[in-house]
Amino acid sequence: MALIVQKFGGSSVADRDRLFNVARIVADTHNAGNDVIVVVSAQGDTTDDLLAKAGEITCDASGREMDMLLAAGEQISCSLLCMALSELGCRAISLLGWQAGFITDRNHQRARIRKVDTERLECEIGKNQVVVVAGFQGINRADDLTTLGRGGSDTSAVAIAAAMKADLCQIYTDVEGVYTADPRVVGKAKKLAEISFDEMLELATLGAQVLNNRSVELAKKYAVRLEVLSSLNPVPGTIVKEVAAMEGMMIKGVAKDENVSAISVLSVHDVPGIAFKVFSLLAQRKINVDLILQSVGRDGTKDLSFTVPSTDRKAAVELLTEQLSRFGGTGVQYDDGVAKVSVVGAGMQSHSNVASTMFEALYENNINIRMISTSEIKISVLIDAKDANKAVNAIHEAFVG
Amino acid sequence: MALIVQKFGGSSVADRDRLFNVARIVADTHNAGNDVIVVVSAQGDTTDDLLAKAGEITCDASGREMDMLLAAGEQISCSLLCMALSELGCRAISLLGWQAGFITDRNHQRARIRKVDTERLECEIGKNQVVVVAGFQGINRADDLTTLGRGGSDTSAVAIAAAMKADLCQIYTDVEGVYTADPRVVGKAKKLAEISFDEMLELATLGAQVLNNRSVELAKKYAVRLEVLSSLNPVPGTIVKEVAAMEGMMIKGVAKDENVSAISVLSVHDVPGIAFKVFSLLAQRKINVDLILQSVGRDGTKDLSFTVPSTDRKAAVELLTEQLSRFGGTGVQYDDGVAKVSVVGAGMQSHSNVASTMFEALYENNINIRMISTSEIKISVLIDAKDANKAVNAIHEAFVG
Repeated sequence: MALIVQKFGGSSVADRDRLFNVARIVADTHNAGNDVIVVVSAQGDTTDDLLAKAGEITCDASGREMDMLLAAGEQISCSLLCMALSELGCRAISLLGWQAGFITDRNHQRARIRKVDTERLECEIGKNQVVVVAGFQGINRADDLTTLGRGGSDTSAVAIAAAMKADLCQIYTDVEGVYTADPRVVGKAKKLAEISFDEMLELATLGAQVLNNRSVELAKKYAVRLEVLSSLNPVPGTIVKEVAAMEGMMIKGVAKDENVSAISVLSVHDVPGIAFKVFSLLAQRKINVDLILQSVGRDGTKDLSFTVPSTDRKAAVELLTEQLSRFGGTGVQYDDGVAKVSVVGAGMQSHSNVASTMFEALYENNINIRMISTSEIKISVLIDAKDANKAVNAIHEAFVG
Repeated sequence: MALIVQKFGGSSVADRDRLFNVARIVADTHNAGNDVIVVVSAQGDTTDDLLAKAGEITCDASGREMDMLLAAGEQISCSLLCMALSELGCRAISLLGWQAGFITDRNHQRARIRKVDTERLECEIGKNQVVVVAGFQGINRADDLTTLGRGGSDTSAVAIAAAMKADLCQIYTDVEGVYTADPRVVGKAKKLAEISFDEMLELATLGAQVLNNRSVELAKKYAVRLEVLSSLNPVPGTIVKEVAAMEGMMIKGVAKDENVSAISVLSVHDVPGIAFKVFSLLAQRKINVDLILQSVGRDGTKDLSFTVPSTDRKAAVELLTEQLSRFGGTGVQYDDGVAKVSVVGAGMQSHSNVASTMFEALYENNINIRMISTSEIKISVLIDAKDANKAVNAIHEAFVG
């Protein structure tokens, strides 16, 4: 008998039929002799509906009241799923975030889990019943409701799996697992049987939106065995674990991220500390800088180029324009029409031909590379957004086939 | 400076405009220098929507999961009202039932309040802000959510007013107060400036659905000064208190209740204990018996007639038919086409002409009386349902004018 945590997202519990579909998966797992803790998100459009209600009233709601409002979403879905489970003859009890012991810090809307107090979870699971936990939410030391921010339910599931030392944490989605590329873009994309935490982290960061990054980091930290699989198609998914089998394939995936903008600060002083000043300024405003390119100095000046998430572009350009004189720069340029394409795979640093294979594939397809960044397990290039899908296909063809 | 509890029902907070209307009332009260605790119900159709969701899944949901589901309704409305208050520049904080200290017994869907732990309420109200409490809900000793059943938000408001020793508990509704009769039935119905708890209780029981009975009982027990008033029309409402001023009018109201059925058990043995047996049988099934008429015994038998709520008629008739032999009865008859009409007013027992005035009014309008019941502060008659509105008008004319 194993303890399995199963997480279902909003579309998986969107309506009556979907709820019964989920209830059947859960009941089957329980009937097979496992202890099961289920984590659910709010139903389909519930969160959007609640946000719309708040938006009618104010565009400046306090984080505390937004959390109070939004937490109602999972409260509804977790009780409904328990009703569906009971209807299938499977005993079940719902627990809100605070009832399940989720203690967080005081940050509303993006709270961090401090700990999961498992006393009640252990008590309820000991009664031979399924426990359905409202994901995404917790409580702070002041007894106020908090929410965990984007991808919060994935994080809830992994946190429970870690705290309860579960044998497996299954993240059910609407895809069958982690693919070598987005199947909507690359027809030949292959499902991976296994992937390592680090590879998954790079893929998640790079825009493969299967698993939230925070949940992968947490899983890695507590060595929680993850499985990404489909709630609609009952086939094995992708296992995420510390070290993945090599599968004769070094490259685990090709990802693209179109939500990036390129910014250049032109002709700044070519003296020590300039890059530090520019990027610390952005860091103070919580703007994450990704790819960075610095031109070779000439005539005592150089250009500094980098990418930021598209949503931060406006703020970054305004800030830099305002402070431009501090760096002696002559102007700030930006370009929203770019995309980042990356190959990810552990072990690529010991294979010198990965980069050249990637660049060759792009060259053969007449795609211009604007910036390049490499890490131990990935190579990213910035290209024109219009070339993104062509680039993903070309790179996938070169590495995976 | 006074502490005022204000309760707003579901229709008062149904949408954006209604929420801002409520927020303005609350902010005005607060700005006038009062401490304000607000109790809200779920928005307009939220509860019905949630019940429909559950109904799609099962017709036999556990009380615990229904409470979990329904409690989301007030969670939504209380956070939205806080946002509206903030938008008006009035600081506010929302508290769920359990955060506001509502400890209940273990009965789901109709929990009784055991106590209100006012520690947090006192702390938050001390911060010069409005506290908005989710009505209708609490928590039991097992840390599970409970709901208080019908009219629960009224009860929540009165319980807070009692526990916090509030100076006034205002129940906002869509009528301007308590009337001498239903204004939709009697054009000349007058709003009462004051009414006593006992009179209000009789009126509530008799179908004047302004205030829930449980909340009036609670207010009487803890001497909470109540005011019933309109959230749409800012005029003084009706004060409910221990002893109401006489106002030169002995009769406080004329009420009708059409949700009654008459049942007769024919020719039961005319021996001691028969009435006890019949009514204890009904009491075991939680069927409330109201007006009772026992015919004069003849030939060793008598007929026993009484009224029950229409919703209990089927169960009562089935039960009595099944057990008929125990009383020696020859049959069970029922009639759903009846209505109860009552006059209510403290002091009427010392005025012998109340009954005769009432009967005369009915006689002059050719309305037949089928059963009569009197108490210290009311006289009720059972008549044909088709005559109910005519009877209410005739009696109102005779007493109030």
